[in-house]
Formats: sequence, structure tokens, C-alpha cells
Amino acid sequence: MSVDNSPGSGGGRSMVTLDDYRAAARPLVEPSAWDFIDGGSGDETTLRENLTGYRRYRLRPRVLVDVSRCDTRTALLGSPVALPIGVAPTAFHGLVTPEGEPACARAAGEVGALMVVSTFATTRLEDIARVARGPLWLQLYVFRDRATSEDLVRRAEAAGYRALVVTVDAPVQARRVRDLRNGFALPPGLVPANFPEQPADGSSAELSQQVARRIDPALTWDDLAWLRSLTRLPIVLKGVLTAEDAARAAELGVAAIAVSNHGGRQLDHSVTALDALPEVVSAVAGRCEVLVDGGIRSGSDVLVALALGARAVLVGRPVLWGLAVSGAAGARDVLSILATELETAMALSGRPDLASVDASLLHPRNA
Amino acid sequence: MSVDNSPGSGGGRSMVTLDDYRAAARPLVEPSAWDFIDGGSGDETTLRENLTGYRRYRLRPRVLVDVSRCDTRTALLGSPVALPIGVAPTAFHGLVTPEGEPACARAAGEVGALMVVSTFATTRLEDIARVARGPLWLQLYVFRDRATSEDLVRRAEAAGYRALVVTVDAPVQARRVRDLRNGFALPPGLVPANFPEQPADGSSAELSQQVARRIDPALTWDDLAWLRSLTRLPIVLKGVLTAEDAARAAELGVAAIAVSNHGGRQLDHSVTALDALPEVVSAVAGRCEVLVDGGIRSGSDVLVALALGARAVLVGRPVLWGLAVSGAAGARDVLSILATELETAMALSGRPDLASVDASLLHPRNA
Amino acid sequence: MSVDNSPGSGGGRSMVTLDDYRAAARPLVEPSAWDFIDGGSGDETTLRENLTGYRRYRLRPRVLVDVSRCDTRTALLGSPVALPIGVAPTAFHGLVTPEGEPACARAAGEVGALMVVSTFATTRLEDIARVARGPLWLQLYVFRDRATSEDLVRRAEAAGYRALVVTVDAPVQARRVRDLRNGFALPPGLVPANFPEQPADGSSAELSQQVARRIDPALTWDDLAWLRSLTRLPIVLKGVLTAEDAARAAELGVAAIAVSNHGGRQLDHSVTALDALPEVVSAVAGRCEVLVDGGIRSGSDVLVALALGARAVLVGRPVLWGLAVSGAAGARDVLSILATELETAMALSGRPDLASVDASLLHPRNA
Amino acid sequence: MSVDNSPGSGGGRSMVTLDDYRAAARPLVEPSAWDFIDGGSGDETTLRENLTGYRRYRLRPRVLVDVSRCDTRTALLGSPVALPIGVAPTAFHGLVTPEGEPACARAAGEVGALMVVSTFATTRLEDIARVARGPLWLQLYVFRDRATSEDLVRRAEAAGYRALVVTVDAPVQARRVRDLRNGFALPPGLVPANFPEQPADGSSAELSQQVARRIDPALTWDDLAWLRSLTRLPIVLKGVLTAEDAARAAELGVAAIAVSNHGGRQLDHSVTALDALPEVVSAVAGRCEVLVDGGIRSGSDVLVALALGARAVLVGRPVLWGLAVSGAAGARDVLSILATELETAMALSGRPDLASVDASLLHPRNA
Repeated sequence: MSVDNSPGSGGGRSMVTLDDYRAAARPLVEPSAWDFIDGGSGDETTLRENLTGYRRYRLRPRVLVDVSRCDTRTALLGSPVALPIGVAPTAFHGLVTPEGEPACARAAGEVGALMVVSTFATTRLEDIARVARGPLWLQLYVFRDRATSEDLVRRAEAAGYRALVVTVDAPVQARRVRDLRNGFALPPGLVPANFPEQPADGSSAELSQQVARRIDPALTWDDLAWLRSLTRLPIVLKGVLTAEDAARAAELGVAAIAVSNHGGRQLDHSVTALDALPEVVSAVAGRCEVLVDGGIRSGSDVLVALALGARAVLVGRPVLWGLAVSGAAGARDVLSILATELETAMALSGRPDLASVDASLLHPRNA
Repeated sequence: MSVDNSPGSGGGRSMVTLDDYRAAARPLVEPSAWDFIDGGSGDETTLRENLTGYRRYRLRPRVLVDVSRCDTRTALLGSPVALPIGVAPTAFHGLVTPEGEPACARAAGEVGALMVVSTFATTRLEDIARVARGPLWLQLYVFRDRATSEDLVRRAEAAGYRALVVTVDAPVQARRVRDLRNGFALPPGLVPANFPEQPADGSSAELSQQVARRIDPALTWDDLAWLRSLTRLPIVLKGVLTAEDAARAAELGVAAIAVSNHGGRQLDHSVTALDALPEVVSAVAGRCEVLVDGGIRSGSDVLVALALGARAVLVGRPVLWGLAVSGAAGARDVLSILATELETAMALSGRPDLASVDASLLHPRNA
Repeated sequence: MSVDNSPGSGGGRSMVTLDDYRAAARPLVEPSAWDFIDGGSGDETTLRENLTGYRRYRLRPRVLVDVSRCDTRTALLGSPVALPIGVAPTAFHGLVTPEGEPACARAAGEVGALMVVSTFATTRLEDIARVARGPLWLQLYVFRDRATSEDLVRRAEAAGYRALVVTVDAPVQARRVRDLRNGFALPPGLVPANFPEQPADGSSAELSQQVARRIDPALTWDDLAWLRSLTRLPIVLKGVLTAEDAARAAELGVAAIAVSNHGGRQLDHSVTALDALPEVVSAVAGRCEVLVDGGIRSGSDVLVALALGARAVLVGRPVLWGLAVSGAAGARDVLSILATELETAMALSGRPDLASVDASLLHPRNA
Repeated sequence: MSVDNSPGSGGGRSMVTLDDYRAAARPLVEPSAWDFIDGGSGDETTLRENLTGYRRYRLRPRVLVDVSRCDTRTALLGSPVALPIGVAPTAFHGLVTPEGEPACARAAGEVGALMVVSTFATTRLEDIARVARGPLWLQLYVFRDRATSEDLVRRAEAAGYRALVVTVDAPVQARRVRDLRNGFALPPGLVPANFPEQPADGSSAELSQQVARRIDPALTWDDLAWLRSLTRLPIVLKGVLTAEDAARAAELGVAAIAVSNHGGRQLDHSVTALDALPEVVSAVAGRCEVLVDGGIRSGSDVLVALALGARAVLVGRPVLWGLAVSGAAGARDVLSILATELETAMALSGRPDLASVDASLLHPRNA
């Protein structure tokens, strides 16, 4: 992919940055759904710090390096991708686009990004897989009713998903203040499509309680063995934020860790994924791949994450902004802007490929 | 107590956080009384920093821990309580609710919190004890007229109070700028009920001067022996902020220390209780219990205080907000929100009981 | 002096803090004169930081100390004073009150503060001395025309001044942006009263140029010997901000150093006096007294300065605010507020006298 | 040059600081051209930090030094200059003044500053040289078409330029958000005058793409040898921000390094030149001269840069503001203000010449 600075085609001439998509998406999304997507837990300290954390880092560019081609290709759990970028699993794409998750999968495939599909998709995982053109991973909650989870695993395997991303930072639902004030519920007709049974009247139940009722708060490390017995798909733990847990995960043969605080939506005042990244990278010592999410809003954010040892980043809300603005085209444009910014930042840093992105890129001042 | 995310019943559907109660209470309280409650001393630097101090800490959550039940029970000076939370002693509850301190005592008992009754209550301490359903401690100033203090101690013992909390950070009254500007005085009919004699005309005297006139500024460590000779009740020193004083208190057999800067109402530019907590915990080395107050506004604040070594926290102004909004029900709802937030934060931190809450929960970055 | 929390009598019921005097004074002073007094040099970074520097320090109060009497007495170069506070030398008191410097001298004497008279007073130094009731020091610039300086020294001796304060941070005039924009000049009729000859038309010359023309930018350490040969009065160097210069001054027998950045009016982006104080105190190692000025706005600021090793503080602008509001009574009230705040802060810190104020009072966190 | 505090003559009585020129220039420049000049890349973090970085440093002034004459003279690559200040190479002066680059060259010469002419000048380099009264250096991009660059080198030599400043931080064009939104293009009639061929219709092509098409992104250290084979002019590398690259440059015989992040216009979130300066100075260890640019807005900024080891600073945008306000006179006034501020800061710091400006001038607190 060559550096292309032309403004995004999906959203009109003024869509130059990811934040432009945020501004454009906001009026297009029903307010309580916007709050569900945009908000975090508690007083949203962690939500904010996810963004500001990246602003602390300063890049040390090298000069007089041949950057006529900047190569952003990598592989994630063996699947080659054009970009060290994936779509983070976010629930209910139907809230922002009638096209739902298939639009997003198409967009990811077109730019060469990984897509991680949420268990709580509004399209069946098989229907998403049918239109996808790149690698798909399935995000999984382990439910009190293990049969439901087991069924999802088998369906993911059958549909060609290449990894299972087990979310471990949501044993209970956090207090999301905006949702509690709004009494947020899925609009009529929108349902978590992967589950056979649905509530009779979706609009009457608060969404967070539906989710809370299903997820097993008693899940422990011992249950990983059960999960691994079900499938040969590699397992990714999402929500690890400490060296201790990272080391244990690596020991148990987890294929990858997604360092994450759930986009500031679970434990408020949690450490940021960015601040936890170095200790996780150091603890796993190459035994598994490390991804990071939360707060990525530009190509230089991606570069910072990679310099700290992440193999790739996951991007959540910005993709939803793209979907809200213009469906698949918008999501693709969001990812393309990020790709272009990344390539530009690599070129201006004198790092023509991802192998040359390491800790020497970061100034110690604020790191 | 199981996690319950439903919005507070006491204050209507939008009472989700403690700050919601602050906003709701403000217009319900007479402005100069509001300033008396809300304000601090000097330029209110300490008042503000009490709040912002907690925002500096970041939590390191552990994952894949069974958090299906989060146990918040502990014991304070031998009394079992459901929560590591107490109501801080605050004067004149009659300023915010006609029910006065009994409403507060009922609320504390219903949620399983400790209540510390102020010497300057607007209800007699015996009347508070009569309705209380949980442990009560009596906060005590040592007066120039020792007979008055002695009388209070005997009455507290007789009424079943379980500890005496001696305030040591108010030998003189600080300059509370809002009160000085307002010329704040208790409204007619409201009196410090624990004292037999009252000023003939309460409205004409400035409250702070009443208080200042009574409290003995010459109190020293030697007077602790006198106090201990009066009673077998355990003694808690409230207002200690240094390792030096904490060590001395522990040596002298004090049962507990409440690390406190008096809610930002006494020495302005004082160190915060939160910043002093580690040195106090270290100095007493387990010889007495350590509590902390000032700035607790959410469950994660409680968690931070416990992780730094406090056995429990005391909460002052938020309980008054609850009382102002809807009396006992409001105070109970405030404490319930705090309890729910604490349990949620424990669950999302992978700490299913208070024994598992220790310094490893805090990220060194801003600690 | 006993603790008195009653609001100031000089400025009406709402004059509780020094900043109240600032607010009250502003509309009473001609705008360009206000800017001359209020402003600093350059972009006023140093002016602002003089204030915010004090906000960084946190006090560690000791408890159970007898603080029934807090003794603020000390001695400055042998003269006993009731307070560790002096009036900083500020030019042209006639700009804010028709009473001029005598009002200020009366106020200082009444509260027991030192007064340092500016060379550029609008009243003759002899006339100030006549009404003063406490110790006076004379601030001195060394002029290109040494005879003028010599004459001032002899007059100061004759009038009973007890020390000469040589300003060494103004060899040239800084760019004071507000004055340059305003083209500030002394109003007709107001003149630097200590000089026999005056410009024919004071209103036509820019004040800063008058000053600049007189002061000798070639003054060096060698000239101190000349100055000492003129007088047996002790010499204070005002404007020292480094250990190197402080050590040299002490070696040369200077009696005191006033650590100062000239109230943010000379070198912009200078270190603050507060930040320089520890290195100066350490460098002089008790060989001379150390005073500090710049940014003192409350009693706890005084306490911070003393804890860092200053023997006393000098206060400039706040005294002018008091003079502007109500002449001598206002200046006295400003100094009284500061005294009361200091005593209160001492009592609440458990420091009943100045000997007990040392570095253990400061928390290391932000110091 | 003696200290002169009189307000600038070029821009009217209120032009006291460089920022005054910014405010005056803004309404005089066509908005999209203003954005081109004023803006940076990405979210402009680096643009902002270039300014705020200087605000962190605090000066330690020495006193009682003879500062009756402050000598700002130095030499840059052997050319004597009156000031340690140069005009940074900025493109297209024709955007702000019809006089173009010759006005700027005249101004620089009159105050004794170096001028670095941009390759993308709107006047031919020979025409600039004709009116210049001080040393000129030519900034050079190395183009894909080496013949064009070679031609420029020969013309610079012939016209008397004294050094070649090779920009190495722009192998690709950064995303400058304002320009992308504005679709910025040169106005009709304005062309990069140094190139024989011009686009047929300048207004239809986006400027950044023109530039990007010409510059060679494959330039490496090896190409320096080619450049040195072309000319005996000393070579300056502009855009170095790391010790590693600085050491390599020094080893290869580069005459000077300009530490620069291209005024915040290339790699966003780059380290600032100010933060990189110490490591560059240390790495070259006197083997070549070191200049710095980006964020200089006052004389004390110059002083900070020199104290950190820079031999001189380059100033870009402020000179354009001066040109926009009143052509050569405005640019001269901008440089004169800076010179006066520098002399004043030297005098008030007790540094009468540039040799006395070293690291002891900076307080370690925020350095």
C-alpha cells in the first residue's frame, strides 16, 4: 500500500481523521445507543485515560533511511494480514448500520485488517463469515450455561473462524452510568443473533442485565482446560492487564493475549492497556503474541503500541463511527485513514517495516 | 450482598452516583448551611486535593478469579460490619433533615456500616443509640471544661457506644472562608443537643466561635492517660497524618487511628489522608487499626484506600447529601451505591474478599 | 497575638483573604498604575509561577501539641519583630494612596512587621522614618552617579534605618509588556521624592527609562567593598537566586540575603525564589540571615517559606492592595490577616513557635 | 547593539512581543495560506509542544556581573553574525508579502542574522542573493531527479551562498490536516521560482503533492557522498533528532546539524527539537555546529537553547508574521524584538556574552 494522503472517499471531503468520523457519526446514531457505544464505566476516568495515555509518548525519528516503500504486513496467529490492525469485537453493529457486522467484515477484508467478531453480534456468525474476505476471530464469553458456549465454539470452527478470543475482564457488568441513566435497551427487532432463544420482549429488558445474567462470574484458570478440550482453535485471552496473569496465560499455552481494559467500559480507574503493555510483553517473553486495544485513534498511536511490543492493535469505536456514517465504505475509510497514517508515521520515523519498530523509537522523557 | 446495578430507589431513577446526590441535595439545603457542609478552610486546596488524590491511582485487575460472591465483611475494633465503610462524624445533621442523626443511624445499620456520631449532633447521643441497629462510636472533642467531656464519655458508655473517637486536628478553628463571609450561625431552634447549657440566642453567635471557645487547644499526649482512666472503651485518634504521631499513638495503646485532614476543613495545604496513609500504616505496623477519610466518592476510592492498608473508610459529606435528599432512605441509598460500586470493583479486580485487597492492586505509575 | 478569625475591619465584612483585597483594590487604582503594580516581565510566566509554586507544598501537621499560644516573634538583623513578615520594598506608594509610604510604615509598625522602604518612594525617607513605629530598612539601587547613592546611605543612617537592602537583580530594566503597551508614566505631581533633581515634565518620560538611566549595570562584587566603606549599617543583598552567589555574599560578610526574583518583574522564566531557597539556605550555612519574597498570599505560604529555611518573608503587592482600599488601615488589615492565618496554620500544624518550624513540616511528595 | 525597550516601529505602538505580530498578521493573510503557515501535522501535538517545551525551563541568574554591554556576536560556519539567530527556511514568502524573500533577506542582513533560503522560495535564489547584506545558506531537498538538485547546488555556489542545508525529515509529506481540509494550493501566479518547469495550472494541483512528487524518499546516508562530491560548500543536515543520527552525521563530516522537527509539520508526536538537543550536542561532541529550531518565540527561549548547547537558533513563523504585517520592516522588527529580549535576558542572567551561557544557567527542576 503506498502513501495516499487524499481525504476519505467514504465520508466526503472533510473526513481526514478518525475524529472526523466521530463527529459525523454522532448525530446519526440514536442518543442512547450513542451513549452505549461512546460511554465507559464509573466516572469514565479510564475511558479518558485510554486516549490521553498515547499522547504522552514521543517518537524519535531516524533519518536518511530508504522509505520509498513502507511495509505494514505481518501475520497474526499465522494468518497473514496487510496491516497490524484488527477490528476489536464490539457488540450490536446493528445499532449503527442496518448492514450489521457483514459490512464491517467486508471493510476489514478490503483493507487487509483482522476482524474479531463479537459474541453479541446482531448477525449470525455464519452469515458474517460468508461475506468475509480476510481472517476472522470469534470473541467469546463463557456463559453459566456452558452448552451455549460450547455450541458457539463448534459453530465458529465450522464457519472458518481462526481463533477464539475469550473475554476475561467482564465477570460482572460494570456500572455504566450513561446506560443506567438512559435505561438503555436494544431497540425492537435488534437481537443478539447468535443465540437461539431470545427474550420475548427485547425492549423491556435492560441490556446490561441480559448480558450479566448469561456470563459466568465463577470462571477461573481451570476452565481454560475445558475450553481447550473443545477445540483446536488457538485461544486468545482478552482483558489481561498484569504481568502475573500474562505469565500464567503463556504458561498455559494461550496463543495470544489482548491487553485491554474493555475500552474503559469495565473496571473504572483500571490501568490502561498501554501502561500495562510493557509488563505483559516482558512477562510472556515471546511465548505468545500480544495485542492491545483501547484509545487507538491515529497511526502514530499504532506505532507507539508496536514500539512497546504489541504485534497488532485492535480498534473498536472508530470502526463503528465509520459504519454509522456510511456502512462498509465508512468502516473501510476509517481503517484506510489509519493505515495511511501508520505508513506516513513509519516513513517519517525512518522505519520502513514493522521489524524496525522497536523501543528505540520512543523517547524516555514521558515513556 | 450481591451485585445490584439498579439505580437508587431513594432518590429517583437518576441517582446513580454519589455526585448525583450532591447535585440533588444542593438546592434543598439553605445556602449558608450548604457552604458550612460543602466548604473547606483557606483557599480550599486541601478540600479539592482530597478528591483529586484518589484519581491518581490505577488499579491492576486480576482475571479468571471466581467472583461470583464478593465478600465485603470485616470487623472494626471487634464489631462485625457488612462493609468496610463507616459514616464519618459530621456535625448538625439537623441542618439537612428534620429527622437528624437518628435517620443516619438507621441508614447505616440497614446497610451494615459503622456510624460515628459527632459530639455536635443535633440529637442527644442516647436518642441516636436508641434507634441504631449497628455499631456506634462517639466522636469526642476534649473541652477546656473537662467535666463536660467526662460526662459525655460516661453517657456514651451507658448508651452502648463501642469506641471514642478523639478529634486531634482541631485545637483551634481553621479559617473557613465561606463561613466567615456568610457569618454562618445555626438556625433558630437547632442546637448541639449533647450539652445541657445552650447559648440564649443561637442565631446571634457565630458557630465556629462557639466551638472554638469550648475545645482545649492545650491538649497533649499526656491527656490521653486521663482519658483512658475514665473508660474502658477503646480510643480512636482522628486527625493523625504523620508516621511520627501514628507510632506514638500505637505505643500509647490507641486502638485505632483515623487518618484524616478533617475533610479539608482544618489545616489548608495539609497533606491528604490518602498520601499520609502509607506512612501511618507502616508506622503502626499492625499495632492498631487504621481508618481513613476525606474524598471517598466511589467504590473504587474505597478499594484504593484498602489497598494502601486502611481497614475501613469513613464517608462524611455524601451521607449528608443523602439525608438532605430523602432522609434515612437517601442516606441508605448513598451507602448502598457505594457498597455496590465496591463489590463491582472487587469483582472486576479479581478480589473476591477484603483479604485479597493489597498493594499489588495498585499500579506504581501514579501511586 | 491571639488567634482572631473575625473578618477584617479595614475593608468591610467580606475582606477575609488577601485576594479579597486584590479584588477590592483593582477598581480603585488607575488602570495603567494597576498594570505597573500587578504586572510582570515578558509573558509573565515567572509572575504566575511565584504564586503556583507555593501550591505544590503539603504540610505534615503534628497533633496533641499545646498550641494555646502560638508565638510568631523573631528578630531580623537584631531587631525584634512580632512577625516573621516584612513589607517588601515597592516603588511609588503614592500611586495607590495619597498618604503614601507613611501609611504603610504606620501599618507595619502596628502589627509588628518589618518595613523595607523603596529608594523610589514618593515620600522622603526621613518623613517615613518620622512616623514609623517599628524597624525600617532602606532598599537601595546603586546608581551610575555614586554620589547620589552615597547621599542616600548617609541620609538612611541619619534617619535611623537599620539596614541597607541592595537590589542586585535589576542591572537593566526588564521588558514589562503591560507598561510598554500602556506607555506607563508617573502621574503629574508624583515624583521619586528621595532625589533632589526631578525631570521637568514627569508625565512625558517613561518611568522605566528614568530608572534605567540611573541604575549602574556595571555593578560587581567589587563594589560591595565601596558600599561597606560608606556605612556601618548591615547590608542585605536582594535578588540572589543561586547557591554560588549566596555563598559568595556570605563570604563577603553580607548580613542577609533576600531570595527574590523581583516579584516576577525582572528576568522572566527565572527560577522562583521558593525553588531557589533551599540551595541558598544550604550555601550560606547559617553565615547570614535569609529572607524570601514573591508570591506570599497566605499564612500557610509563610509557613512553607519558613519550613524551607527562610527567617522571614517579604510581602509586596498585597500591602499595596490594602493601601489602595483604605490606606494605613487597609495595609494593617492585610498584614493582620496574614498574621492570623500564620498563627492558625502554626496551631493546626502543631508548631507553637518558629523554632519548631522546620523541614519536617513538608511532605516530600511535591516538595 | 544596546538594550532598547522601545516598542517596534514596524507594526505600530503595540507591537511589543512576537505574538503581537502573530495577532496582527493573521487577518492580513488569506485563510488557507494562514493555515498552511500556521498549521502542523496530525493532531498538532508536536506543533503545540514545540512552544510549551520552552516554558518548562527555569533560568538561574547570576548577579553583580558587569552587564553594561551584552555581546550577542558569534560566527556560524565561519561567517560572523551579530546575533545567534537565523531565519529558518520557510517556503513561499510570496504568500505573505508581494516583496517575497528579498524583503526577508534585507531584514536579516540589517539586524545581523543569518538567513536560510528555502528551495521553495517564490523568488529565484540569485535574486535573493543580490539584495542580501548578510550570510545566506540555501535549504535543499534532494529530488528524485538528481539533476535538478545538482543544478540548484551549482547555482547556490555561483550566487555566493555559504552553506547547503539538506532537509532530511521530509522523505514523504506528512498529513497536514488543515491543508487537506482546505485543499490548499498556491494562488495563481505564485510559483516555486527556482524550478525552470512549472505546472501549467498551479491552482489546480495540491501543493503538498507537487512537493511530494519531487522529493526522493529513498535518500540515504550513502547519498551524502554524492552531494559532497558536487560542492565544496559545507553541508548542514536539518531534521536530525537523535544521538545516533547526529553521531553518524558528525562522523561523515557534516559541518552542522539543525535539530528540528520541521516546525511540527512532519512527524506528529515527534520529540521536540528542544528535548533532543542535549543528546545531539553530546553525541557530536564539538565535531560540528548545532543549531535548533521550532518554538522560539522570545529572547529567553533563545537563551535556553544556547544554554543547552545550541550555537544558534532558527526562527520561522515569526519572521513570516513580520513580513505579513509590514514586509521587510516587519521582519526586521520581529528580529529586533528577539535581539532586544535576548540582550535583556543575558543582562538579567548575568551573562554578558555567549561564552558565559552554559548549562549552569538552567535550574534542574524542570530541565
